[in-house]
Amino acid sequence: MRHIFIVGIGTGNPEHLTVQAINALNKVDVIFIPSKGAAKAELADVRKDICQRYVTNKAVRFVDYAVPVRQTAERSYVQSVDDWHAQISSTYEQLFEDHMTEGRSAAFLVWGDPSLYDSTIRIVERVKARDRVDLDYSVIPGITSIQALTASHRIPLNLVGKPVQVTTGRRLSESFPAMVETAVVMLDGELAFKRIDDPEAYIYWGAYLGTEDEITIAGRLADVSDRIVATRAAARAKHGWIMDIYLLRKGSDFDDQA
Amino acid sequence: MRHIFIVGIGTGNPEHLTVQAINALNKVDVIFIPSKGAAKAELADVRKDICQRYVTNKAVRFVDYAVPVRQTAERSYVQSVDDWHAQISSTYEQLFEDHMTEGRSAAFLVWGDPSLYDSTIRIVERVKARDRVDLDYSVIPGITSIQALTASHRIPLNLVGKPVQVTTGRRLSESFPAMVETAVVMLDGELAFKRIDDPEAYIYWGAYLGTEDEITIAGRLADVSDRIVATRAAARAKHGWIMDIYLLRKGSDFDDQA
Repeated sequence: MRHIFIVGIGTGNPEHLTVQAINALNKVDVIFIPSKGAAKAELADVRKDICQRYVTNKAVRFVDYAVPVRQTAERSYVQSVDDWHAQISSTYEQLFEDHMTEGRSAAFLVWGDPSLYDSTIRIVERVKARDRVDLDYSVIPGITSIQALTASHRIPLNLVGKPVQVTTGRRLSESFPAMVETAVVMLDGELAFKRIDDPEAYIYWGAYLGTEDEITIAGRLADVSDRIVATRAAARAKHGWIMDIYLLRKGSDFDDQA
Repeated sequence: MRHIFIVGIGTGNPEHLTVQAINALNKVDVIFIPSKGAAKAELADVRKDICQRYVTNKAVRFVDYAVPVRQTAERSYVQSVDDWHAQISSTYEQLFEDHMTEGRSAAFLVWGDPSLYDSTIRIVERVKARDRVDLDYSVIPGITSIQALTASHRIPLNLVGKPVQVTTGRRLSESFPAMVETAVVMLDGELAFKRIDDPEAYIYWGAYLGTEDEITIAGRLADVSDRIVATRAAARAKHGWIMDIYLLRKGSDFDDQA
């Protein structure tokens, strides 16, 4: 049986790697490296830097592969993602057939943690379900962008004893501020925080967290919203891409009498 | 100025340590180790094991301290926690005065990640606000029990594009199943999942995650609820303590037509 390690690598700081991740990367036969095109060359560089630093076993081979591009034309969001996953699972199946014989192992390096807004687990499950290659897999956790955000801002994620909602920009209007005191918003290309008109809301924003290009801004949403929009646009123009996340909060520890 | 590193150490597997955490532990002058009493001796052992494995700098000193016990009599939950934090901040202030001169650094080892249902950041902020010792601090992220749970069950935390609620047992009835498809429940001594009567709900439960004693159970809530209750009670009796977490889910990827 082939074994796949789905390894979380943190958010860009090579020192986010865990000992468990480093050990896994040194015991596999192959590491699959996605080539994502020039725009995100810096992301590919982080993966290469990690391998150069930590993979000391000379027997480990590296195999580059092209990630299919998601097609959005004439499809709903769900169809678009579903089709894309189907395509990637074909790519993975081919990788396993071409570069691993029975009993061999391989690793994928996943940005952040494999469980959080990432589909590598789902896609490997699809390949497994097709049953054309015999395989099993393990998941190795990594530092998420949520933790990188709260660490850089030196804030607790939750207020004392209170819940946290992790959501996407598309969903934000459904969940803040009525329902929770803390919302973490990921994958927000639409800057959904601009829609929130709440004088008590605070925002903690971060981009390129963990990397040398990290930027953070925090303050009352009404005060810093425009600065985040402008900073984000300038950074995106400079780098050609952006990866950002933010936390919205209202209320404070101990403000309930429960 | 004194510098405090608040270092996330993961959930019991010493291999959860990140390179960033290991480097921080090797550059401080002092590591403060809480002695939490015999019941959680295994937790203290994990901290000692981590230091023995990774702290190679012989100049690092270790200082044990007693953590004050939270008083709950004649207090609301909020008062109880607030008083407790005040007590711990006095303990910390004394540690900084007794064991660190100006310009020295120290580390606290925090279970999981310092941002998630942990108050070390809040307490260090209290000491800083009192302004009797001059200090600054940094936060180093660690693997959370949420990530240890999803990695062991090999599941994504979120359904595709959908939100996740992280909450406590006390709050669960307010938030599931009406509002979210995925709820992660922490700090639940009351087994709040027993109150949920939903034939479509699935549960992914784990205890002592990351340690050699790890136990996981997954399945339809109605089918496995009793088994979790019995397994949890037996494990708690055996170890004298338990640390567990679970994820509740209903629905599936791509079940909305958005």
